[in-house]
Amino acid sequence: MQLHDIGEFGFIDRIARMAADDPAVVVGIGDDAAVLDLGGPDHVVVTTDAMLEGRHFRLDWLAPEDVGWRAASGALSDIAAMGASPAAVFCTIGLPPEWPVERADALLGGVIDAVQAVGGTLAGGDVIASDRVLIDIMALGRVPPGQALLRSGARPGQVLAVTGALGAPAAAVMALTRPGPDTLAGEDLAPVRRRFAHPEPRVRAGRAIAASGLVSAAIDLSDGLVQDAGHIAERSGVRTVIEAGRVPIAAGCAQVAERIGGDALTWALAGGEDFELLIALDEADLQALLALEAVAEVGLTVVGRVEEGAGSVALDEDGRAIDLPRGGWDHFA
Amino acid sequence: MQLHDIGEFGFIDRIARMAADDPAVVVGIGDDAAVLDLGGPDHVVVTTDAMLEGRHFRLDWLAPEDVGWRAASGALSDIAAMGASPAAVFCTIGLPPEWPVERADALLGGVIDAVQAVGGTLAGGDVIASDRVLIDIMALGRVPPGQALLRSGARPGQVLAVTGALGAPAAAVMALTRPGPDTLAGEDLAPVRRRFAHPEPRVRAGRAIAASGLVSAAIDLSDGLVQDAGHIAERSGVRTVIEAGRVPIAAGCAQVAERIGGDALTWALAGGEDFELLIALDEADLQALLALEAVAEVGLTVVGRVEEGAGSVALDEDGRAIDLPRGGWDHFA
Repeated sequence: MQLHDIGEFGFIDRIARMAADDPAVVVGIGDDAAVLDLGGPDHVVVTTDAMLEGRHFRLDWLAPEDVGWRAASGALSDIAAMGASPAAVFCTIGLPPEWPVERADALLGGVIDAVQAVGGTLAGGDVIASDRVLIDIMALGRVPPGQALLRSGARPGQVLAVTGALGAPAAAVMALTRPGPDTLAGEDLAPVRRRFAHPEPRVRAGRAIAASGLVSAAIDLSDGLVQDAGHIAERSGVRTVIEAGRVPIAAGCAQVAERIGGDALTWALAGGEDFELLIALDEADLQALLALEAVAEVGLTVVGRVEEGAGSVALDEDGRAIDLPRGGWDHFA
Repeated sequence: MQLHDIGEFGFIDRIARMAADDPAVVVGIGDDAAVLDLGGPDHVVVTTDAMLEGRHFRLDWLAPEDVGWRAASGALSDIAAMGASPAAVFCTIGLPPEWPVERADALLGGVIDAVQAVGGTLAGGDVIASDRVLIDIMALGRVPPGQALLRSGARPGQVLAVTGALGAPAAAVMALTRPGPDTLAGEDLAPVRRRFAHPEPRVRAGRAIAASGLVSAAIDLSDGLVQDAGHIAERSGVRTVIEAGRVPIAAGCAQVAERIGGDALTWALAGGEDFELLIALDEADLQALLALEAVAEVGLTVVGRVEEGAGSVALDEDGRAIDLPRGGWDHFA
């Protein structure tokens, strides 16, 4: 049996089983981040997120500062999904020795800008020579004990809601992948380009959501809405149902779909790397959450519901919910 | 100007200059690990250490579990050098999708064994597909405020001392690099093979040294004795002098040198990845330190002295100290 047979998540499950229990580890492997009790007033939230050239990004698609920004944003989005405040960030960077110093500075500047934009600090890292550009970000955050947002708290009868709008990063990748002239050119597609190159992890919204105490489960959208809803379903022991007609599609996706013949809804459902938050809460609490400034400024849209179940995710396109195979990004697939 | 012109440490200096000040960062970039004040009773020590197949290890030299053990030990050695107790460890592993699951389990098992051997816990990580095996370890430790061992405290008049004995990993690499029959075969070279495949980060000794309050500077030997003594010199604003005749050479190195024609002293001075501790202290405190069980069990040998200076490192072979260029491993060189 090879790794691609069990997939990325199968291997992570094996890691979780091999790791020992430790009272200092409040939440271990299997959520967006680990939660540690190191004896301080806050719990410490830790996540790592690695991006490798050719697998996760292409240097001909993004400026070096955007590569750095995106890599940092992936880890910061995990911190946001836990409802934590970013503290210190560490990065391991692998670069070819023949890279111009200015290009390396720009990439690193993107990392630092993304970290500082959400109130964190780059506090260390490691540098190695590598043929392919590698950026591995480790982010630490702080959250008051009991406030961390987990994947495991969704309850039947609740609704699922997302911040922002989805699909722009997938639309950008699809457009950039096509040979021929640049299908992302034009002022009307500037929002798509920007959301792809410069995602904004929902740190302020995540922190406000956690502090409100109104939300019982959360995850950040990195694998794609359907797959990430599946992660909540699995960890919560429920069935999550995505209602296709309610999914907010990001500005510009429809135009990209028209130009290249793709499907904007598919990008929003399965595209990944949206770095928005998916949360489960009682519908009655929706207005109270939207009254929070940090939530209102990014928007919050109901996209589905939580039902009794055992870890499945379904798509409801016309009033009939059909269980789905987990469509999404698997690194070993 | 390219990265190999400024070198690994030149680039790390640039990172340090670009990073902002933050009151929570007690010690930032430039030591073995960062020290954070997250409001708890202990300070939190954080380090990252990345190893890439072909650059830092070869799969035909080590069993997968040894690759994992060594990678984890590199980061744990940084924790030891700060005088901290390991808490949680996170790993990013990049593996080819066609790897057998058992081999991946073995590699990961090596990481977990190394972490648990020093009282830590694997608490999370990330998994990516990668043509070359990549292991990036991030380790968190705890140290009481004011006890962290830094590179910056060495004072003229002090002595330099190392735990254990040096050179075995370099001897092993030199032997393995030679074509032809396995020059590491034989029972007499078992210690060399073992020190290479299964280094033991000096976590207990480091913690005892920090708690003693007798040591004013420390670093772990990952780049090689001369280069690491240079790091202490630079951060402390002194000249460090290594006295060649006093350097303890690991068992088996002389036999390897005889077989393949190398020089055991050179391996001990410049080889790297010994994962012992180099400390600066007043000579009068040496006996008190050796009376600590955790120090006595690994041994402690004076290898040099600290003089007035401005960041240089010298080698004293016959009573005359000659300033050296920094001989050691530079990832971009």
